Amino acid sequence: MVGRTHGVHAEPITFGLKVLVWYEELGRAQERLSRARAGIAVGKLSGAVGTHAHLSPDLEEEVLGSLGLAPDAVTTQVVQRDRHAELLQAIALLGASLEKIALEIRHLQRTEVLEVEEPFREGQKGSSSMPHKRNPVNCERICGLARVLRANAHAALENVALWHERDISHSSVERVIVPDSFLAADFMVTQLREVLEGLNVYPERMRSNLEMTRGLIYSQRVLLALVQAGRTREDAYALVQRHAMAAWRSQPDLATRLLADPEVSRVLTKEKLLACFDPTHFTRHVNRIFERVLGEPVAAGR
Amino acid sequence: MVGRTHGVHAEPITFGLKVLVWYEELGRAQERLSRARAGIAVGKLSGAVGTHAHLSPDLEEEVLGSLGLAPDAVTTQVVQRDRHAELLQAIALLGASLEKIALEIRHLQRTEVLEVEEPFREGQKGSSSMPHKRNPVNCERICGLARVLRANAHAALENVALWHERDISHSSVERVIVPDSFLAADFMVTQLREVLEGLNVYPERMRSNLEMTRGLIYSQRVLLALVQAGRTREDAYALVQRHAMAAWRSQPDLATRLLADPEVSRVLTKEKLLACFDPTHFTRHVNRIFERVLGEPVAAGR
Amino acid sequence: MVGRTHGVHAEPITFGLKVLVWYEELGRAQERLSRARAGIAVGKLSGAVGTHAHLSPDLEEEVLGSLGLAPDAVTTQVVQRDRHAELLQAIALLGASLEKIALEIRHLQRTEVLEVEEPFREGQKGSSSMPHKRNPVNCERICGLARVLRANAHAALENVALWHERDISHSSVERVIVPDSFLAADFMVTQLREVLEGLNVYPERMRSNLEMTRGLIYSQRVLLALVQAGRTREDAYALVQRHAMAAWRSQPDLATRLLADPEVSRVLTKEKLLACFDPTHFTRHVNRIFERVLGEPVAAGR
Amino acid sequence: MVGRTHGVHAEPITFGLKVLVWYEELGRAQERLSRARAGIAVGKLSGAVGTHAHLSPDLEEEVLGSLGLAPDAVTTQVVQRDRHAELLQAIALLGASLEKIALEIRHLQRTEVLEVEEPFREGQKGSSSMPHKRNPVNCERICGLARVLRANAHAALENVALWHERDISHSSVERVIVPDSFLAADFMVTQLREVLEGLNVYPERMRSNLEMTRGLIYSQRVLLALVQAGRTREDAYALVQRHAMAAWRSQPDLATRLLADPEVSRVLTKEKLLACFDPTHFTRHVNRIFERVLGEPVAAGR
Repeated sequence: MVGRTHGVHAEPITFGLKVLVWYEELGRAQERLSRARAGIAVGKLSGAVGTHAHLSPDLEEEVLGSLGLAPDAVTTQVVQRDRHAELLQAIALLGASLEKIALEIRHLQRTEVLEVEEPFREGQKGSSSMPHKRNPVNCERICGLARVLRANAHAALENVALWHERDISHSSVERVIVPDSFLAADFMVTQLREVLEGLNVYPERMRSNLEMTRGLIYSQRVLLALVQAGRTREDAYALVQRHAMAAWRSQPDLATRLLADPEVSRVLTKEKLLACFDPTHFTRHVNRIFERVLGEPVAAGR
Repeated sequence: MVGRTHGVHAEPITFGLKVLVWYEELGRAQERLSRARAGIAVGKLSGAVGTHAHLSPDLEEEVLGSLGLAPDAVTTQVVQRDRHAELLQAIALLGASLEKIALEIRHLQRTEVLEVEEPFREGQKGSSSMPHKRNPVNCERICGLARVLRANAHAALENVALWHERDISHSSVERVIVPDSFLAADFMVTQLREVLEGLNVYPERMRSNLEMTRGLIYSQRVLLALVQAGRTREDAYALVQRHAMAAWRSQPDLATRLLADPEVSRVLTKEKLLACFDPTHFTRHVNRIFERVLGEPVAAGR
Repeated sequence: MVGRTHGVHAEPITFGLKVLVWYEELGRAQERLSRARAGIAVGKLSGAVGTHAHLSPDLEEEVLGSLGLAPDAVTTQVVQRDRHAELLQAIALLGASLEKIALEIRHLQRTEVLEVEEPFREGQKGSSSMPHKRNPVNCERICGLARVLRANAHAALENVALWHERDISHSSVERVIVPDSFLAADFMVTQLREVLEGLNVYPERMRSNLEMTRGLIYSQRVLLALVQAGRTREDAYALVQRHAMAAWRSQPDLATRLLADPEVSRVLTKEKLLACFDPTHFTRHVNRIFERVLGEPVAAGR
Repeated sequence: MVGRTHGVHAEPITFGLKVLVWYEELGRAQERLSRARAGIAVGKLSGAVGTHAHLSPDLEEEVLGSLGLAPDAVTTQVVQRDRHAELLQAIALLGASLEKIALEIRHLQRTEVLEVEEPFREGQKGSSSMPHKRNPVNCERICGLARVLRANAHAALENVALWHERDISHSSVERVIVPDSFLAADFMVTQLREVLEGLNVYPERMRSNLEMTRGLIYSQRVLLALVQAGRTREDAYALVQRHAMAAWRSQPDLATRLLADPEVSRVLTKEKLLACFDPTHFTRHVNRIFERVLGEPVAAGR
């Protein structure tokens, strides 16, 4: 399929590579959550100001141990709120990664692109008024909730600086943001899993979009071939750009234009030039990238 | 051109209508900025704790008057920071509206849509490596800076609750956020004006995108026609949806499918049905909307 | 009472002046809310993409009129979200002003200051474990919820830039932030009103705190008297600072030290010097400030 | 010294315990920064869309290795922005912890408390107009900049969801927030270190503040002694609260009141009662807490 930068066709990629980026990023999200979870798995029974004035540290260890929590080594009246903030931050960053995937699906589902679609149940209504509609509403919802998660993480940061051995200003905040962030994140993960499991993928649209610009996306390889053939980079850039800009919106296509240009044909054979327009050249290292991420060779069928 | 909801083709609109939404919204932004400016055009010379202990209120009025500022009626050591927060909020909200316009242009410039393009100077490089690229970088930059503006407005809100007759925690914040927000907003406005003044608009692409779904976007009007002809809304919806879903990705188009369906032809003549597929019906009230906003009739040429 | 800057005693003020600052600021909050309410009191019945394709503008006016709403002059599928963002911003800024007042009460209730206290019901428990406690928990709660309000306003700003004629990403956000912000703001206003109506004010503590530094807070007036008597500002500052620093933590007090210094007695009579230590001089313009804010003279009893 | 919750005197602690909380929390901040640094120590030379189309993965490894960076296993045109967001989050959370310490110092420096003071250079001016002032301006500045850091982390989260193989909206944001967050955090750390290294600590004020409530802070221990002596918790609470409330603002002190109450003397000897008012009982486990944190016994001199 075509890779896009700035929303504009760039160079060929594979859909698998796109998904691999998500996979790797979600792995980092998982690690952050695990660490934040470990960081919050502490408790305290150290009294009103953290001194164990009325209950001994030994009792604290016993009680917390029975709850599967470690005693927080030193506390005030409460466990310090940087631990909670780290957790809310990890959830917010997970949310941003989920948003990124959901946003990508929304982009790929736009009518003009239509390379993937959210699952759409038989009998589902995409719109109450327009019967033709199939909207990526789950992915839109995920994008929206990511905003709530980062707002909550912001509030959690304001909860860290409590007065002295504790003030209770954090409590009213936490009653809102902690359950809301957990519920929203859980919902987002569940929804996105459903979207991904039932995702409709349209390879034929990927192919036709890849060819939509009639070869423009191979401009860099032509540029490099010209440089290799002895042109300065600047000259070669100007030359390819001139033909590319002309080809953007009128016939003929880039390859035809280049073949007709003596400045090109002088240094590149037709064969060499046309070889630049081969998408498989661009994706020849993709299996290697999969190996880097997954730690093992990828089966040929990929 | 086609109107899009959820990124999916919905019903016909005009490009002018889209721009009118921007125009109206920026009017609101301007009002908010004017109000915030008036709200901040105060000063104080009321001393260390706001009592005028060492300089009289009369002197304050004289000095501030010479600066074109009104005396703030009551102050502490400083003018209260809700005034500054309102200003930063107004700037951030302006930024969000600029972001909306810039985001729209980015969407309309994607290769598959390509209905408008940011101005692109002769000789400009869209990408250092891919000579074919023309990227909406100005609009992307505007979208980015809107994030900075809202972050700054958030910090401004935290500056409101100072201690007693003043603590100076707000000062280090304001040294960063006030100039940054003014500079960024000014830059964004200037950039967007340049983008809009030199915007390339491609009506032929608007038309071809409008026709891309071969009539699907008229589904609501068919639905309403069927209802008017006596079908229940539910039945009509199911019927149109069935044909629409089939037409999404295979021939023939929606109109042809409907014409071939006896359930349709029994209640709608061919003429009546095909009349549903007329884009000008959808935009017949657009001039009226312009009048609502601009307060005067719009010339026929619009 | 003593005015404080940076948490450190500065110069005398009155408690009324402090409250007047709140009064004036809440007036601004009220205006912002009114404006935001007017800005959101619009509706739309303009169809799937804002064109009135299936319902006329006339019908829209009739229906919305019956709801007490004005038609939004131009819309997409929805009313533009800058209107909602302005509302959430106004609520967040109200919250910051409520936070400021609540924060001040918390400061004034600290054990060492104890000039005011939140109402405390007979039989109420300030702490489950420490029977002597009376904590400003309502004010702490207000401070916390202000964090939630500003986080929500931030999310509202991210809702402005929707795709084309609408995407639905804003909806999941609004379902959380709109009711939460209204509920929290309403609660905060109600709570703060109760706190203020039942506020315990301790004038005798205000007086003893005013005298706590044994005259240091009059240092500026001494400085100005020395300057008026012919000393350079720099000399006078150094002289007063030297004595003030010595008086901070050991006997005798500032006035006694100054009287014993020939550099002072040479230019200021004892009478003139002691006149500098009169708190009523510092608050002599306070009634004038009340008149500026309230628009009418203040009764002598103030 | 006295421990305070809700700004109100609670029970005795030691200043060392307070600092130990900071020490432990900053250790967590350091770990988060180390992890975020490791997470960002990757690079990429994988081309315009992450495929290594024009440069091999081998070359990437060589070049990045020479820079001390690992190749990011899979990328788009850029390293994914969740890595940058994690870094900005870690900096913002460090900032919140620094803010907490700075806020504490500001509280302890207020005139009525005055248990510690920021270093104040000979000849420094605390205020241009009030020669007696010594303000915690460095700590106030640290509190302010923490707001900037969390605002920047919020913006960084909005940078994660880029379009397809990259859009450049993140770039304008990062040019602002990355240097600003690094510079501000560095400044805050440096300033706070200076403040802590030169901190003036006033043990005599700590002692006098501890005694300010004439024994109220021992109310919990009395309560527990009464319960141990056979009173129900509810009765004992009501009894102690009644005397405590009376003692808050008038003579005699809590102990005297309790001794005179037959309900108390019936179950507690004078000796047992007075033993409750011993601050060293409250801090007897503090060395144990130091051992938990530092991993070794604390010298007796502590």
